[in-house]
Amino acid sequence: MSVLALAGGVGAARFLRGVVRAVSPTDLTVVVNTGDDREFYGVHVSPDLDIVTYTLAGRIDRQRGYGLEGDGFRVVDALAELGHETWFRLGDRDLATSLHRTLRLREGAGLTEVTREVRRAHGVDVEILPMCEELAPTFVQLSAGRRVHFEEYLARDGAPDDVQGVDLTTAAAATAAPGVLDAIAGADAILICPSNPVVSIGPILQVPGVREALEASPAPKVGISPIIGGAPVKGPADRLLRGIGVEVSARGVAGLYAGLLDGWVIDERDAAQRQDVEALGLRCVVTDTLMRSPEVAHALADTALGLAAGIGGAR
Amino acid sequence: MSVLALAGGVGAARFLRGVVRAVSPTDLTVVVNTGDDREFYGVHVSPDLDIVTYTLAGRIDRQRGYGLEGDGFRVVDALAELGHETWFRLGDRDLATSLHRTLRLREGAGLTEVTREVRRAHGVDVEILPMCEELAPTFVQLSAGRRVHFEEYLARDGAPDDVQGVDLTTAAAATAAPGVLDAIAGADAILICPSNPVVSIGPILQVPGVREALEASPAPKVGISPIIGGAPVKGPADRLLRGIGVEVSARGVAGLYAGLLDGWVIDERDAAQRQDVEALGLRCVVTDTLMRSPEVAHALADTALGLAAGIGGAR
Repeated sequence: MSVLALAGGVGAARFLRGVVRAVSPTDLTVVVNTGDDREFYGVHVSPDLDIVTYTLAGRIDRQRGYGLEGDGFRVVDALAELGHETWFRLGDRDLATSLHRTLRLREGAGLTEVTREVRRAHGVDVEILPMCEELAPTFVQLSAGRRVHFEEYLARDGAPDDVQGVDLTTAAAATAAPGVLDAIAGADAILICPSNPVVSIGPILQVPGVREALEASPAPKVGISPIIGGAPVKGPADRLLRGIGVEVSARGVAGLYAGLLDGWVIDERDAAQRQDVEALGLRCVVTDTLMRSPEVAHALADTALGLAAGIGGAR
Repeated sequence: MSVLALAGGVGAARFLRGVVRAVSPTDLTVVVNTGDDREFYGVHVSPDLDIVTYTLAGRIDRQRGYGLEGDGFRVVDALAELGHETWFRLGDRDLATSLHRTLRLREGAGLTEVTREVRRAHGVDVEILPMCEELAPTFVQLSAGRRVHFEEYLARDGAPDDVQGVDLTTAAAATAAPGVLDAIAGADAILICPSNPVVSIGPILQVPGVREALEASPAPKVGISPIIGGAPVKGPADRLLRGIGVEVSARGVAGLYAGLLDGWVIDERDAAQRQDVEALGLRCVVTDTLMRSPEVAHALADTALGLAAGIGGAR
């Protein structure tokens, strides 16, 4: 069975560690947001691609939520001494990943090929695809006309609350990376990971052809709510949802995906929203979605895949 | 008193630590070989500039002869895991220096300006000038028609013995960096450090205008032999001298500089060559030139500067 997942960073990566316990890694393809990509210190950083890769490799720095466990910061510390702004705390080994990416891209390799090299070097058998190969940065519109790159918003400014909107026009002008549309078309089940719907899944859905391929696919499509009890587990999804006028709730995010998904997995704390989700035309399952451990992630993956199988079987 | 020194890497840097004990650091200007410069891992590495800077800052890794003391190797180790050739063992903090240089050069800064930024960040008051701002790589011609960049010869291949010649044509086509010719013209004393005459001092002398400025300068010019007892203290000067048909001796190197220098400092072990040196028209002083300690370097600097003063006073 071929599973296709759309993914952002931390939440998605934790969930995917559960998915690879439920299905063979070689049966899983992940399409990852690259809207957070940016050059830092002259190297091409792909935050979500690396979080997914490192997490599946079992090497993620769980404390920080990104980067490699046990990494150090000699390079950024030395750059700071040389007068550089170093609010983006890229670890030394993590910088090597991005340096490799930069050198290979400069040689003419595509981001898809480089991503494959990196995940293979980390022993990851899951196919990890960038949503597109060109830079397609997500910008956050703030009050007083300020417009910042998503990483500036998140890592530099600490995710302030005055979000007026999110600009995904670069994603909307991008080209789906090689293999993305085919992977969607060929999937037996499609999952939307518990990621930020605005700045992680949002950009992927903006890439021309992606939404159409999802709509055209006969595979059952199931999402997992990234909102539990009215708040995201990690990250600024609440501020971004409010910024685009969407209720910060399992039900609110379901509304964003209505028409695209067949099923929606919500947390036990949100059980009361089940009827509202079903009213959107989605099959809804209530379970423990707070992935405190790989076991919970595994159970959640089983639940999501079970929901997909049920939807598929009912057709 | 304004002192101008021509310098390569390790030997020069040790000697210069002695010079700054003999004169005020702000009275010293060093013109440094950049023939060893090369891009490694996407960053512009300037081995000799950094060795001189780090040594004057008291931060050189004395064991390795280059790089920063206490540095680590997370980046090159991670690059090796990603399949890169990593025979050039650039430390993490050392890489940050080169990354800074790369970013600033990309922004349009000149190598001279960047070198000043780096030495100031390290608290070094000596003016350190690259010989030129463009890449002017030194190539070593080996047997069987092989031609390799100097760093490939030294660091990758371990300085093999089959040197047929040295190619300095890029230096000969370069432009002296801003300030170099003026610093030579304005110097009260000129020193040629105990550096490799072929691949360290050689390239500097090839840069158009440098030799002419030295010849035109009325300042006394004194060199220190890099050869002691028929061998270099460090590095492949013996193989390179043989490769260009020059005797590996204090006398042999003096012959290379004859016509340019007024005085030549040789080691006690080479006292017997004094007459041969003087026969070349050079004033010769015999002393301890093996810089086992900063004190020896200081005494050597005093000797060299004393020789220069004596030559100057005799005019």
